[in-house]
Amino acid sequence: MYYKHHVFFCVNRRESGEICCAHRGSEAMQLYAKDRIKSMRRAGPGGVRINKAGCLDRCELGPCVVVYPEAVWYTYVDEKDIDEIIDSHLVHGRVVERLLLP
Amino acid sequence: MYYKHHVFFCVNRRESGEICCAHRGSEAMQLYAKDRIKSMRRAGPGGVRINKAGCLDRCELGPCVVVYPEAVWYTYVDEKDIDEIIDSHLVHGRVVERLLLP
Repeated sequence: MYYKHHVFFCVNRRESGEICCAHRGSEAMQLYAKDRIKSMRRAGPGGVRINKAGCLDRCELGPCVVVYPEAVWYTYVDEKDIDEIIDSHLVHGRVVERLLLP
Repeated sequence: MYYKHHVFFCVNRRESGEICCAHRGSEAMQLYAKDRIKSMRRAGPGGVRINKAGCLDRCELGPCVVVYPEAVWYTYVDEKDIDEIIDSHLVHGRVVERLLLP
């Protein structure tokens, strides 16, 4: 396993004005998560990688993020949600039930 | 498991002229794979999703692609390699040893 947790934020932007993750702040949240993981010294091989991704095709439930290899899908609203995903799931391996996608 | 195989192509482009996956044709190969999976009617929930991703941070071994949840990393040169990853791994679950990243 190259990364223990490989996290993909949808940062897709639809120009037509349709619902998309980018319109709901996903780019800023991806950067926030990436910077926080780096500051916690958990970034890199054997640790965590926070990636941008194109459309994950679950737009109506977004903004969305998926954590592999465990294939856990979350939504989020703000930095507080991102912090909980990091502190609970990425650090301690405990899934954040309240943010799970249905 | 929302997608049986979730495939992420690094399509990162470094503007500085450094080695990157985009300079080695990753955008065209991602589209090729996405179209082929669609034409095979294997796209979507329960099937395969072919995604773009930002830098996967294994640039020196690229162009690279990772298949989750199995966390199998490949490199590739052309459509023939992509076809082999699709036909062997994504359809039959057989890893393509010759294209594995070390």
